Amino acid sequence: MKAKVHVFLKPGVLDVEGKAVEGALHDLGWSGVGHVRVGKTIEFDFDHADKAKAEAEIKSMAERLLANTVIESYRIEVA
Amino acid sequence: MKAKVHVFLKPGVLDVEGKAVEGALHDLGWSGVGHVRVGKTIEFDFDHADKAKAEAEIKSMAERLLANTVIESYRIEVA
Repeated sequence: MKAKVHVFLKPGVLDVEGKAVEGALHDLGWSGVGHVRVGKTIEFDFDHADKAKAEAEIKSMAERLLANTVIESYRIEVA
Repeated sequence: MKAKVHVFLKPGVLDVEGKAVEGALHDLGWSGVGHVRVGKTIEFDFDHADKAKAEAEIKSMAERLLANTVIESYRIEVA
């Protein structure tokens, strides 16, 4: 199955990359842009028969490796 | 409106970050994981009345700033 893990900084944690992108977009004339957040998406194939168990495994991957849960939150998609 | 731009390396472009994540997941015992790709997601609020025109603007942002279209592809979501 195809798995996606979206990782974003938690609200309240300063997103310097997002701020830089926002500034650049404003400089290019897109003044209507705000609240820019830059996150990471990890996509992969996961060889697993049981979807519910696979989701639990992917949650464990996110907690152990893919996200730093002190400052980042994550969302899992399995298709 | 809420906009999301997903940016990924094009197929065929070596994704070193993806390879590193894949190796680490294998080392942690998840041998069923393959084809790991790591991408970027830029989320923002965009103040625009017309959804179709907003999409065209966001495409322009992606081409000019958010993605390096020589090696990256992008996908836009507007909600």
